[in-house]
Amino acid sequence: MSRSVVAAMTAYTLELREAEIKLNQNESPFDFPADLKREVLARVEKRGWNIYPDFESMGLRGALAKAYGLESDNILVGNGSNELLAATIGAFVGPGTPVVFPRPTFALYEKLATIAGGLLLPIELDLDSGYLPLDEMLATIAKYDDAVVIFCSPNNPTGGVLPQGGLEKLLDNGATVLFDRAYGDFAVDTLPPLHERLVTFSTFSKAWGLAALRVGWIASTAASCREIRKVKLPYSLNIISEAIAEVALANRSLYERTVAHVIGERARVAAALREIGGITLFPSSANFLTFRCARGAKPLFEELHARGILVRDVSSYPRLKDCLRVSIGTREHNDRLIAALQEVA
Amino acid sequence: MSRSVVAAMTAYTLELREAEIKLNQNESPFDFPADLKREVLARVEKRGWNIYPDFESMGLRGALAKAYGLESDNILVGNGSNELLAATIGAFVGPGTPVVFPRPTFALYEKLATIAGGLLLPIELDLDSGYLPLDEMLATIAKYDDAVVIFCSPNNPTGGVLPQGGLEKLLDNGATVLFDRAYGDFAVDTLPPLHERLVTFSTFSKAWGLAALRVGWIASTAASCREIRKVKLPYSLNIISEAIAEVALANRSLYERTVAHVIGERARVAAALREIGGITLFPSSANFLTFRCARGAKPLFEELHARGILVRDVSSYPRLKDCLRVSIGTREHNDRLIAALQEVA
Repeated sequence: MSRSVVAAMTAYTLELREAEIKLNQNESPFDFPADLKREVLARVEKRGWNIYPDFESMGLRGALAKAYGLESDNILVGNGSNELLAATIGAFVGPGTPVVFPRPTFALYEKLATIAGGLLLPIELDLDSGYLPLDEMLATIAKYDDAVVIFCSPNNPTGGVLPQGGLEKLLDNGATVLFDRAYGDFAVDTLPPLHERLVTFSTFSKAWGLAALRVGWIASTAASCREIRKVKLPYSLNIISEAIAEVALANRSLYERTVAHVIGERARVAAALREIGGITLFPSSANFLTFRCARGAKPLFEELHARGILVRDVSSYPRLKDCLRVSIGTREHNDRLIAALQEVA
Repeated sequence: MSRSVVAAMTAYTLELREAEIKLNQNESPFDFPADLKREVLARVEKRGWNIYPDFESMGLRGALAKAYGLESDNILVGNGSNELLAATIGAFVGPGTPVVFPRPTFALYEKLATIAGGLLLPIELDLDSGYLPLDEMLATIAKYDDAVVIFCSPNNPTGGVLPQGGLEKLLDNGATVLFDRAYGDFAVDTLPPLHERLVTFSTFSKAWGLAALRVGWIASTAASCREIRKVKLPYSLNIISEAIAEVALANRSLYERTVAHVIGERARVAAALREIGGITLFPSSANFLTFRCARGAKPLFEELHARGILVRDVSSYPRLKDCLRVSIGTREHNDRLIAALQEVA
C-alpha cells in the first residue's frame, strides 16, 4: 500500500555484529569524559522531564552562534544532521526538482531526494583523485535553472574533498547548495560564509564524539532558516542531548584533541596500508580510510572480524566493488588493524 | 528559493511566556520520580556516548512488544510520534494522494500532507458533539480509491473521539488509516488489533510524562513497518531517551497514576467550568479542556496570565474563534485555574 517510489526502495540496513574493536561507523575513538558526563546528568536531573523542550532551542542555538560568529537566527538545531537534511530537502526539493550529487556518497541524500520526487542526477566520482567531480557537477547544473546540489566534503564513504574554490563556483553558477560538513573537521575545513543559496550541515556525532546523543545543526541565512523551519518538526531535540551539546561546546579542547588525533593517526595508518600489497588505498581527508581489497571485500571483512575487528563492507555501493571502509580508532586499535591487514590482505 | 508549497506555508509558532502554572501544552502534571531519574542516568553514564545507538532499537521495541502483546517487527520507535508521522506520511502520501482529516485538529497532519503534495480533504467537525465526523469522513473516502485518513482520537485541540466502531468502518471502506493515539490513554482506549491498512501512533509525552525526552512508537503489520522504515531516518532515537522509555515501561504504575488523576480531575474541572456563565465547554476525553469564552480568547488569556496561569490560545484554529485550551494539571493548579476563571470569565 506504500507509494510506488517507496515500494521500489530498498531499506537502509546495517549488519549487526559484535566485535572487540569497532571501526565500522566513523565514530570518535574517545568517549565523553566521565566528569563531564556526571556534570551534565546532574544538570538535567533537575529539569522537569514532563515538560516539552524549549520551542526555540535558544540555549544551544545561542551557544553555536557565539562559537561560530553567527546570530541565532542563522542556526537551526535538530535530532542529528539527518533530520535537518530531511527538512531542508523537504523545503527545497519537490517533484521534478533537479538534484545533483556525487556517487558513491552517503545513501541518505538519494533516499531523501527520491521520497521528495526529485529528478536524480548522480555524478560518478573518481576514487583515486581525492576530489569530488566539480567540473561535471558544474556542467550538470548549467543544464537546469533550479538545480539543488547535495554533497559531503570530505565525501563518505570515499574521503575525497571538493576542490579549492569549488563551493564558490557552485554558488556562482546558480545552484542551491546543501553542503554536509559531517567530516569537515578532519579536513581542517572552516564554516564557509553565509550565502542565500547555501545551507551547511554540521554534526556532534563525529569530531565532537556524541553519536549516541543525535545532535546536528545547520547554518544559513535567516530567510532560509525560516523556510526550513516550516518543514522541520517542532521539539525535535530532547533536553538531555541539547544540554550535552552545550557542555561539549564549552569544552572545545575535547574536539581539538579528537581532530588532532584523527589527523595524525590517519596519516600513520594510511602510510602503513599503502605498503600492503593487496590493498589499494583511496586518498581520504575524513576520519576513515577506504580501500580496494585484492582478495575481495567479504573474505577480508570476515578475516578481520575473526580477529576482533569490525569494519564496514561498502562493496555494495556503486563503484566500490571489493572495497572496505575503516574508521580511524585509538592508536592501539589502529595498530591491531594494521597488523591484521598485514597478515590477511 | 524554497518550493512554492513551502513558501506559502506559515510557520508553526508558540508564543513564549513564563508563568507559575503551565497548562498550555497538554503535559503531564507529574515529573518522572527522582529515584528513577538517578537510576536511568547512572545506567546511561556507563554507555559510550561516542557510539551510535543500536540500529534496530531492539531494547525498547522488545519492551513495547512485550507490554502490548505484539512482536518487535510490529513496532518502530522514533524521536517523538511526530517523527513517525512524518515517515509514515512520506511512505503513504505522494503528489495527489487524497488525505482526509478532521478540522480543526493537530496542525502537523496538514503540514506534513502539504509537504508531501497530498490532496487535502479536511472535514469540519461539530465541536459540541464530542465526536469526530465519522459519517462525513466515510462519505469522502467513498469518493476515492486510495484515501489516507489521519486523525487523533481524542482529537487535539477539541477533545472529541471517534464514535464506537468507527475505526472498523474506516478500514472496511478501504481507507489507509493513520490513527494518532497521543491522547488515547485518557479515553481508556486500548491499542486496536493490527490491520494491514492501519498504523497507530503512540507517545511517551502525555500519559507517560516524558515530553522532554521525545519518544514515540508505532504499531502496524510487519509489512507496513518495513515500508515506513524505508522512509524513516536511521538512528533517530538517542540512547538516553530510549533507556528512559524502557525504565518507564517497567514502572507502569506511574502511567496508571497519571491517567487516573487526569480522568478524575478532568471531571471535576469540567463540572466547575460548566457552572461559569462566560464559558461554553466542549466535551473532552483528553487531558485538556477546550472552551469558548464570551469575553474573547485574548482578553481571557491575558487575565489568566496576569494571575500566573499560562493556557493555550487556540482561537486562530479553524472554527475555534474565541476559544482557549487548558491542560489538566495538579489538583492545586486546577483549583487556581477554576478560581481565576470564576473571577474573570
